[in-house]
Amino acid sequence: VSEPGLFDEILARGGVREAVDDRAWLRAMLSAEAALASAQAKLGLITAADAARVADACRVEHLDLAELARKGAEHANPVVPLAARLRELAGPSVHCGATSQDILDTATMLVVRDALAVILADVTGAADAAERLASEHRDTPMAGRTLLQQAAPITFGLKAARWLAALDAARQRLSAWQPVAQLGGPAGTLTGFGEHALELVELFAAELGLAAPILPWHTDRTVIGELAGALGVTAGTLGKIARDVTLLAQSEVGEVAEDAPGGSSSMPHKRNPVAAISALAAAMQAPGLVSTLLANMIQEHERAAGAWQAEWRPLRELLIACGSAAAWTRACLTGLTVHPEALSANLAALAGRSGVDLGAAGELVDRVLAGREVR
Amino acid sequence: VSEPGLFDEILARGGVREAVDDRAWLRAMLSAEAALASAQAKLGLITAADAARVADACRVEHLDLAELARKGAEHANPVVPLAARLRELAGPSVHCGATSQDILDTATMLVVRDALAVILADVTGAADAAERLASEHRDTPMAGRTLLQQAAPITFGLKAARWLAALDAARQRLSAWQPVAQLGGPAGTLTGFGEHALELVELFAAELGLAAPILPWHTDRTVIGELAGALGVTAGTLGKIARDVTLLAQSEVGEVAEDAPGGSSSMPHKRNPVAAISALAAAMQAPGLVSTLLANMIQEHERAAGAWQAEWRPLRELLIACGSAAAWTRACLTGLTVHPEALSANLAALAGRSGVDLGAAGELVDRVLAGREVR
Amino acid sequence: VSEPGLFDEILARGGVREAVDDRAWLRAMLSAEAALASAQAKLGLITAADAARVADACRVEHLDLAELARKGAEHANPVVPLAARLRELAGPSVHCGATSQDILDTATMLVVRDALAVILADVTGAADAAERLASEHRDTPMAGRTLLQQAAPITFGLKAARWLAALDAARQRLSAWQPVAQLGGPAGTLTGFGEHALELVELFAAELGLAAPILPWHTDRTVIGELAGALGVTAGTLGKIARDVTLLAQSEVGEVAEDAPGGSSSMPHKRNPVAAISALAAAMQAPGLVSTLLANMIQEHERAAGAWQAEWRPLRELLIACGSAAAWTRACLTGLTVHPEALSANLAALAGRSGVDLGAAGELVDRVLAGREVR
Amino acid sequence: VSEPGLFDEILARGGVREAVDDRAWLRAMLSAEAALASAQAKLGLITAADAARVADACRVEHLDLAELARKGAEHANPVVPLAARLRELAGPSVHCGATSQDILDTATMLVVRDALAVILADVTGAADAAERLASEHRDTPMAGRTLLQQAAPITFGLKAARWLAALDAARQRLSAWQPVAQLGGPAGTLTGFGEHALELVELFAAELGLAAPILPWHTDRTVIGELAGALGVTAGTLGKIARDVTLLAQSEVGEVAEDAPGGSSSMPHKRNPVAAISALAAAMQAPGLVSTLLANMIQEHERAAGAWQAEWRPLRELLIACGSAAAWTRACLTGLTVHPEALSANLAALAGRSGVDLGAAGELVDRVLAGREVR
Repeated sequence: VSEPGLFDEILARGGVREAVDDRAWLRAMLSAEAALASAQAKLGLITAADAARVADACRVEHLDLAELARKGAEHANPVVPLAARLRELAGPSVHCGATSQDILDTATMLVVRDALAVILADVTGAADAAERLASEHRDTPMAGRTLLQQAAPITFGLKAARWLAALDAARQRLSAWQPVAQLGGPAGTLTGFGEHALELVELFAAELGLAAPILPWHTDRTVIGELAGALGVTAGTLGKIARDVTLLAQSEVGEVAEDAPGGSSSMPHKRNPVAAISALAAAMQAPGLVSTLLANMIQEHERAAGAWQAEWRPLRELLIACGSAAAWTRACLTGLTVHPEALSANLAALAGRSGVDLGAAGELVDRVLAGREVR
Repeated sequence: VSEPGLFDEILARGGVREAVDDRAWLRAMLSAEAALASAQAKLGLITAADAARVADACRVEHLDLAELARKGAEHANPVVPLAARLRELAGPSVHCGATSQDILDTATMLVVRDALAVILADVTGAADAAERLASEHRDTPMAGRTLLQQAAPITFGLKAARWLAALDAARQRLSAWQPVAQLGGPAGTLTGFGEHALELVELFAAELGLAAPILPWHTDRTVIGELAGALGVTAGTLGKIARDVTLLAQSEVGEVAEDAPGGSSSMPHKRNPVAAISALAAAMQAPGLVSTLLANMIQEHERAAGAWQAEWRPLRELLIACGSAAAWTRACLTGLTVHPEALSANLAALAGRSGVDLGAAGELVDRVLAGREVR
Repeated sequence: VSEPGLFDEILARGGVREAVDDRAWLRAMLSAEAALASAQAKLGLITAADAARVADACRVEHLDLAELARKGAEHANPVVPLAARLRELAGPSVHCGATSQDILDTATMLVVRDALAVILADVTGAADAAERLASEHRDTPMAGRTLLQQAAPITFGLKAARWLAALDAARQRLSAWQPVAQLGGPAGTLTGFGEHALELVELFAAELGLAAPILPWHTDRTVIGELAGALGVTAGTLGKIARDVTLLAQSEVGEVAEDAPGGSSSMPHKRNPVAAISALAAAMQAPGLVSTLLANMIQEHERAAGAWQAEWRPLRELLIACGSAAAWTRACLTGLTVHPEALSANLAALAGRSGVDLGAAGELVDRVLAGREVR
Repeated sequence: VSEPGLFDEILARGGVREAVDDRAWLRAMLSAEAALASAQAKLGLITAADAARVADACRVEHLDLAELARKGAEHANPVVPLAARLRELAGPSVHCGATSQDILDTATMLVVRDALAVILADVTGAADAAERLASEHRDTPMAGRTLLQQAAPITFGLKAARWLAALDAARQRLSAWQPVAQLGGPAGTLTGFGEHALELVELFAAELGLAAPILPWHTDRTVIGELAGALGVTAGTLGKIARDVTLLAQSEVGEVAEDAPGGSSSMPHKRNPVAAISALAAAMQAPGLVSTLLANMIQEHERAAGAWQAEWRPLRELLIACGSAAAWTRACLTGLTVHPEALSANLAALAGRSGVDLGAAGELVDRVLAGREVR
C-alpha cells in the first residue's frame, strides 16, 4: 500500500483510494488486454500459445507507469503506448482489432467494481451499526426536530432506523449497478474481429466477469451516468446521517458523542465529532462531480473529443469521496455513544407542551429491522 | 392551457410545462388531502360524510392560488394556509394528523408521475423515430468519426441503433422509478393516526396509486435523488443525440437535415437544425439541477431547515428541461432527412484509405431492433 | 405586478421576479431595437423620422408575447418574429444589420442591470441590519463555536461584523460587474453597419447606458461567467448568514429569534425562523445554476448551437435565487431579536473552562464599522 | 519532480500539479508557522532566538508527511500534528495563539498564489500565440459559422482576436485576485496575540507577501468563492477555444491542424488534435468543482463542521484542471497550422450566396492587438 497523501486519511479514507489508484487501473488494463487475447484464442482467432504469451506480458512489472503516462499524452490516452509495449513483449497477437477505448472503458469497469465492493462493505458496516442503534434505542424517547426546532417526540431508535433504511436503499442501488465490458473496435462495428465478433464480445466479457453489452457503448455513457447517480444518492444519504450526528453532538444538545473525538491545536477541551465531520466533507464533494459526469455524457459521434477523457478524474474523485464518506460514517456510527440523560433533559420542555405520544415509532423500527432480516 | 412564456416554446417545450405548473401542484395537494380523509374514513377515524365533505372542498376553484402563495410564505410552505382554508370549507376532518410535508411531498410525487408520463411518451416517440432510421439505414455506409476525425466506416443504421438503445435504456430507467406516498405526521412517528396508523399509510397510498413507504421519508430523500439521477441520465442521452445531429447537419458535412429548419433574422439562407439545438439547450441544463437536488439530500433531523424547500424549483426545472429535450429530440428524429449522397461523398476519402469493411454493423442493428420487438 | 406563483413568495421573494419576467425581457429587447435605430439615425444611416417610427413601434403593447414565443421557437430565438413584427409596424429601418443575438444579449444586459439593482438594495439592507447588530452587540459576549462545538468566547457583535463584511464584499463585487452591449451583426464583423460601424457600437451602447465592447462577444461569455461567479459568491454569503441564524435559533440554543416566526400545520408551539430558512433554500440553488452557466461558456464558432439558448433559464433562475436569498436575509436580520440571557447561559459552561478573554473582538467590530462609514 | 500519474500528462498537464502537491502544501504550512513566529518576534512576543529556532524547525525534511496525514485524520486537519511536531523541535514558541485553520488557510493562499503564477504564464503563452494568429491572418477570409451552419464571412484573424481578448480578460481577472492571510486564533477574536494583535496580523501577512484581512475569514469564504469563479471563467474561455479548434480540425473542415497530432491504437491515418482535446477535457471538469466550492461557502459559526475540509480536494482539482487546460491550449495555439486553401474552399459556396464583405473585421483585430500593446 502506498503512503497516504497529506489529506488522504481525512478525505480519501478507507480502501477505495488503493482500489482506484494508478496501479489498479494499470492492472485492470492489462487484465482487459489478456482477456481479449484469451477470448480470441477460444475462437481460434489466435493460437493458445499466443494468448499465453500475451497473458505473460500483461504484468504490471513489465510496464513503466510514468512512461505510459508521458507517451499516452501524445495520443490523449495511455492505451496506445501500452499496446505498443505489449506488442514488443508478446508480438502481434496483442490488442487485435481493439481500440484504445475498448481497453480503457473495460478497465474502468473493473476498477469501479473493486471500488464498489469496498464502498458496499463500508455502507453495510454503517448499516449494521445503525441497526444496533435502532434496536437498542427502539423505545428511547427524544425530541424530534423540524426546521431545527423541537417539534414532537420521537425515539432514537426511529432516527437510527431511518438512517438504516436509507443506507440499505443505497446499498441495493449500488449493488444493482452492473459493470459492462466494452469491445467495439475503431468505430464500434466490431470490424477486425471476424465473423464471430458477437461471440467474441460475450467471451471477452465472461473472462472478466462483466456483463456483455448489446452494442459497444463508446459514446452511450448510460452506464457511467447511472453509476454517478447511484454514488450521488449514496453520498447524500451518508451526508444526511453525518449532518444529524454533528447536530446531535453540539455542545448545547449533547445527545451523542463519538468514541474518538478530535482535539484542536489550540483548545484542549474540544471533543469534535471528527468522523461525522469528515464524512460530511467527503459527501459534499459528490454533487459537483456527478454533474460533471452527467454533463460529459454529451459525447460526439463514435468517440468524444474531450468528454471521454474528462470522465477519468471526476469518476475517481467520486468513488473516493463516496468511499471516504462511507468509511467515516461506519466509524462514526459504530463508535457512537448515546446519552439518554441528555435525550431526556432536552425532551422535558417539549414533553411539557405536547406530551410524549410516540405514535407508531416502535412498530416502524421493527419494520425496518424485520426487512433487514429477510435480506 | 396557459399561454407560453417568452422562452417556453424553446426551453419548456412539450407537455411537461403544464404537468408541473402551479395548478397541477395545487390539484395534487388537494388530491392528497382528499385521499387522506378518504383513507381515514375507511378506517373509521372520521365519518364517510366528513370525508365526502373534504372531497367536495378539495377543488381548485375553492382556492385562491396567489393567496396561498402569500400566506404560505409566512410558514415556508403553502400547505399551512391550504389546510386552514379547507378547514373553513369542510370542518376539522381536514388534514387530521398530517404535517405539511406529508401533503406537499405526496403532491410532488403525483406531479412527477404525470410529468414522467409526458417525458416517457416523448422519449418513446424519439426511440420510435430512431428505430425507423436504424431500420431504413441498416446498410447505409458512412464515415465513423472519433475525436471528430474520420476513423473507420460505420452505417447510419448503427448510429441510429445506438441512439435507440440509449433512449430505451433511459425509458426503462425512468419507468422503473416509483413514486412513494408520504405520511408521517409532525415528526414522522404517525402519532395522531391512532392504532391503525400503518394501515392508514397503505390505504392513503393506494387511494393515490402510489407506493406505500416503509417509513416516512421526510429527510431521507432517496426517492428524489434517484429521480434526479434518472432524469440526468435521460438528459445526457438526449443531448448526445442532439449534438450528433448538429454535427451531422454542419454545412461542410451535410449528412442530415431537419424538416423544419430555422431561419435567421439576418441570413435568409440559413437552415438551422432548430430542434436539435433546442434539445441540446434543454439537456445542458440538467447536470447543474441534478447536483442541486443531490446536494439538498443532506437534510437535518426530522425536517430540513431549507434543503427541503430548496427542492421545489430545481425539481420543476429539471422535469421541464428533460421534457423539453425529449419533445425536441422526438421532433428532430421524426423529421430527420438523411442525405445518402453526402454520406457517400464524405466516406470516399476515408474508404480509399481503409476500405469499407462494416464489420458486424448490420447484426448489431438487428440486435437492437429485435430487443425492441420483445418489449 | 403579476400574481405570485405557488412557491414564489418563498423562493422568488422580493423585486427580482418582476425585474426578470417576460415583460421585462420584452421591454428590454424593444429598448435595444429602438436604441439601434436611434444610434443609426445619429450616424445618418437611417433618417431621424425612421428612427422615430421605430421608437414608436417598440412598445410592449404592440406585441403579442405568446405569439413571439411560438414563432420564436421556429428559429430558436424570439428575436426573429420580433424583428418581423416591428418591420410590419415601422418599415425596413428596424433591426438593420443586427443579428438576433445582438438584440437578445443586449436585452439580457438590461434585464440583469435592473435585477442587480434590486439585489443590491436588499444586500445593502441586510448589511445595514448587520451593522446595527454589530454596533449594538459590540461587547455582548457569547460562545464561539467551531465544528459545532463550543470553542472560545466571542461577541455577538463580532459575528454580526463578519456577516457585514461579507455582505459588503458581495455588494462591491456585484457593483463592479459591468453590463456590456452586444452588437456585431450575423457573424460579428459589423458588416452591414457601414464605415462607421465602430462608432455605431459606441453610440448604441451609450443610448442604453451600457459599456461598449471591444469586440462582439457572441461566443466569448466572460461577462456572463463573471456575473454567475459574483452571484454565486453572494448566494454563498447569504446562505452562511442564514445557516448561522437557523443554528442560533435552535430550541436548545435559543440565542436569536426572528420577529415573524412561522407556524406549522400541526404544531402550534413552533416558532420557525422562516426568513432564514427561506433564504437558505434560495441560496442553495445557486451553485448548480452557476455551474450550468460556466459549462455553457464553451460555445462554438461565431454563435453556439445550444449553449447560448441554454443560458436563459439558469440565468433567470440564478438572479431570482440570489434576489430571494437577499430579500429574506434582509428581513431576517432586520427583525432579529438577540436574547442576551441565552447568550450568557450558553457561555457559562465554556467560560468556566476557558475564561472570557474576548481578545480584539471589539476592535475588529470597530474596524468593520469604520470601513463602512468611509464608503 | 515526482513522476506523473497514469492520466497526469493528459489531465494534470503543466506546472500546476507540482505547485499544488503535498510537498508544496507542507512547505506552505511551514512557511506560515515560521512567519507567525517571525512576526511575533518583531513585536517582542517571543524572542528572536525562539523565532530562529522555529524557522530552523520549519523544514520539510523534519516532517514525515504520511505520519502527519495519519495523525491529522484524528483531528480532521493535519495542522494539529504539525504543530505538535514543531513544538518537539523548537519548543513552545511554535503556533502561539494560532488555530489550525490559520495555518492551513494561509498555506492554501500560498499554494494558490504559486499555482496561479503557473496558470497565468500558460494563459499568457496561449494569448501570445493567439496574437500571432490574429496578426498573421488579419485579412484571411473564412466562413463564419453560427449554430454550426455557415453564416457570413469572417477572417481567421478575427476568430483569433476573439480568443485573444477572452484570454486577456481571464488573465486580468486571475491577476486581480488577491490572496489574503488568515490569522484569528481559536474563534477569530485574536485572543492569545496580546494587545498588538492587529499589528501582528499585518506583520504576519507582510512576511508572506499576502494581503492582511480586515477580519479573520474562517467562515467567510468570499476569497475562495471569488477564486473559484475566476478559475471557472478561465476554464470556460479555454474550453471555448479548444472546442473551436476541434471543430476546425474536423476531417470535413480541415482548416487547422496541430503540429503534434495524436495517433490511434488501431487507425494509423488518424491525426487527432490531441492538445485541443486534452484542453477541453480539462476545462470540462471546472464547472462542477466551482459549484462544490460555492456550495461549501455555507459554513457554520466560527469554523465549519465539514464544509471547510470539503474545500481542499476540489480546490486542488480545480487548479489542476485550469492549469492543464491552459498548458494544452498554449501548446495547441502555439503549434497551430492554418490551411488557407481549406479556408477558401469552404468559403466558396457561402461567398457565392452572400459575397465576401468582411465588415470591420480588420479594425476589430487591430483594436485587440493595440489593446495588448498598451498593457
